[in-house]
Amino acid sequence: MRRPEEFKEKQGIDVFLRHKVNKLDPTTRKVEVEDLEEGEKKILDFDKAVVASGARSRRLGIPGEEAPNLFTLKDLGDAIRVKQYLDQKRPSRVAILGSGYIGLEMAEAFRERGLETTIYYRGTRPVSHLEPEISEAVLRELEEKGVEFLQEHAPVALHKNGGEEIAALETSKGRYPVDLVLSALGVVPNAEIAHEAGLRIGRTGAIWTDPGQKTDHPDIYAAGDCCEVQHQILDDLVYMPLGDVANKQGRVAGENAAGGQATFDGVIGSMCFQVFSLEVATTGLTENSAKDKGLDVGVQKIKASSKVHYMPGAKPLELKIVFERPSGRLLGGHMAGKEGVARRINTLAVAVQSRMTVQALSRMDFAYAPQFSAPFDPILIAAEQALKKL
Amino acid sequence: MRRPEEFKEKQGIDVFLRHKVNKLDPTTRKVEVEDLEEGEKKILDFDKAVVASGARSRRLGIPGEEAPNLFTLKDLGDAIRVKQYLDQKRPSRVAILGSGYIGLEMAEAFRERGLETTIYYRGTRPVSHLEPEISEAVLRELEEKGVEFLQEHAPVALHKNGGEEIAALETSKGRYPVDLVLSALGVVPNAEIAHEAGLRIGRTGAIWTDPGQKTDHPDIYAAGDCCEVQHQILDDLVYMPLGDVANKQGRVAGENAAGGQATFDGVIGSMCFQVFSLEVATTGLTENSAKDKGLDVGVQKIKASSKVHYMPGAKPLELKIVFERPSGRLLGGHMAGKEGVARRINTLAVAVQSRMTVQALSRMDFAYAPQFSAPFDPILIAAEQALKKL
Repeated sequence: MRRPEEFKEKQGIDVFLRHKVNKLDPTTRKVEVEDLEEGEKKILDFDKAVVASGARSRRLGIPGEEAPNLFTLKDLGDAIRVKQYLDQKRPSRVAILGSGYIGLEMAEAFRERGLETTIYYRGTRPVSHLEPEISEAVLRELEEKGVEFLQEHAPVALHKNGGEEIAALETSKGRYPVDLVLSALGVVPNAEIAHEAGLRIGRTGAIWTDPGQKTDHPDIYAAGDCCEVQHQILDDLVYMPLGDVANKQGRVAGENAAGGQATFDGVIGSMCFQVFSLEVATTGLTENSAKDKGLDVGVQKIKASSKVHYMPGAKPLELKIVFERPSGRLLGGHMAGKEGVARRINTLAVAVQSRMTVQALSRMDFAYAPQFSAPFDPILIAAEQALKKL
Repeated sequence: MRRPEEFKEKQGIDVFLRHKVNKLDPTTRKVEVEDLEEGEKKILDFDKAVVASGARSRRLGIPGEEAPNLFTLKDLGDAIRVKQYLDQKRPSRVAILGSGYIGLEMAEAFRERGLETTIYYRGTRPVSHLEPEISEAVLRELEEKGVEFLQEHAPVALHKNGGEEIAALETSKGRYPVDLVLSALGVVPNAEIAHEAGLRIGRTGAIWTDPGQKTDHPDIYAAGDCCEVQHQILDDLVYMPLGDVANKQGRVAGENAAGGQATFDGVIGSMCFQVFSLEVATTGLTENSAKDKGLDVGVQKIKASSKVHYMPGAKPLELKIVFERPSGRLLGGHMAGKEGVARRINTLAVAVQSRMTVQALSRMDFAYAPQFSAPFDPILIAAEQALKKL
């Protein structure tokens, strides 16, 4: 990997490592940066600025949060710190607070190391913003792999046992001995500098931008986890801090800051993750989010095989599609299973984005070979069955 | 599996096993069937008829073809015969004639049993109707797995060595000792009965039907490997005897014969197969078929990783997309690689069928997780690079 300093020399770009931005002044077009090691402050001029301040882990906001055995996982440094602690202190009981992708992926990582792993969640089901059917599949997988999921456990306090380290987690339901706590409550956008600069902050708390990633100041752009993104199906700005979205926003912001005219169409919420052997993938609206939008919503759920049942490695998968009635317009698709799930979801992502109906979807010509699919792909079966519900 | 006799009793359907149809008379609406065991002939009346006479393996048409160690592979019986011969006679040198999916899949099967396996092909490259880049990938895989591919070897004769069995294959290039010959030259439609009945036979030699699977006789339908299918992008009838197509045609023919109004939209040529560890998948038009249609054709080829390069199991894949200029309309997509290929192709199949442009495709919101894809999926990268060629 090329070090930033080399890149700087090669491209004629000034790179300030270990500096933070204290202030952005849109009126004078100046930025105050501070050297984090020397404490020295500099004022830099800009013609165009791109705010890419990212996001940070959401804090618990309860006593004991500063303990050395409480971790968050946002960047590589966090991961290294967790790993070092595991190697040095050999904790045996891990408490995970929160039940999103990071919490689930880390549950797998801890469990694979043989640790006693418990997820404490204030709600009732993991990945609660996804379909209930997916939460059920995740719960079954956690149970099968020996991860305990404790629902309706809101963290209340982190108790120490004499020393600096947390020895017990207190939740709304009780007190539990722990050796390590992972706080995985999601992220919040680093929008403070932008807010203080008077830039428009959206309803989500992240920086507002137009489709060219321009803020409400004509010379300031924003991209990545610090800003909002347009949801094409909800027709609204949402906060969806995902790596591929940030990547696309960054390109658009950079191109436009340099005088270009690029736009970013936004997202439909395509996403996939894996917990143990379960693949989960989703695109478009869930049943609930479609209903919240006031649509007349139909759903079709099917259970199918990832490939022809007689082929080695065939695994069951669940698929739920969400569509508008009576038009049949596909609004979303949601899948869970142990094989052949994640790579299938983009087929539905294209269908949702091209505003395809379930009628048209049911007539698609898909590739078939027994080791990859059934003659009627699960997507075709779901679409065909949905026709009866229009 | 339920036996046909049971099905018959349950549904009140007459099933004639081990019978063949000798004649179909559309004028009198009668069918002559012959009991293959007893030799007895029966005349049956019909109100509506569905011709589902399938296809048969194409014959070599050279001397020696009737030998007991020459095999074709069309149905389960063929496969059992090959297997029995392998088990009983223990041949060591196998000659495969033809280089389509069956030839390739059987090359793998023979090689996995440790046999010395050679593909003899009159043309220059395997799967020659697909993109040259795919043929190259297949060739590399064959070589890696120890299957010899001999190009421009047209079979001329099959020589016996005293007994009934073929002992040598003579091609346009020379004479080769063999213990078993697999003739895999594709299939021809069983259209004779339909032809004799005066039904319209298409340019391809298969039975012509309309989108309701109706022949040119108002009471006779046809479905499956005996008939043609509409190619949506070529806007022409083609012969594409594939299992999933037959399945869909059969449903439409059956529904309409019973008074329904179903239609089958046809195909775009979506197809996948696997040879050893190489997955191949294709949809829509190849570069050559698009040029043959007189279109102004652009192509974009990329090499990418099946998932983020640092993830275990990441494998290179090749993707070629074919599009129309200057509109950017996506015409086809073609992939080969050792991981994550076949399940990706239907994403392009939906894009082709929804007449998406590469401009729109490059802006799709796809699901991303490092174990399944890169932040920019290979399809997005190809589409974005294609923009420069419009």
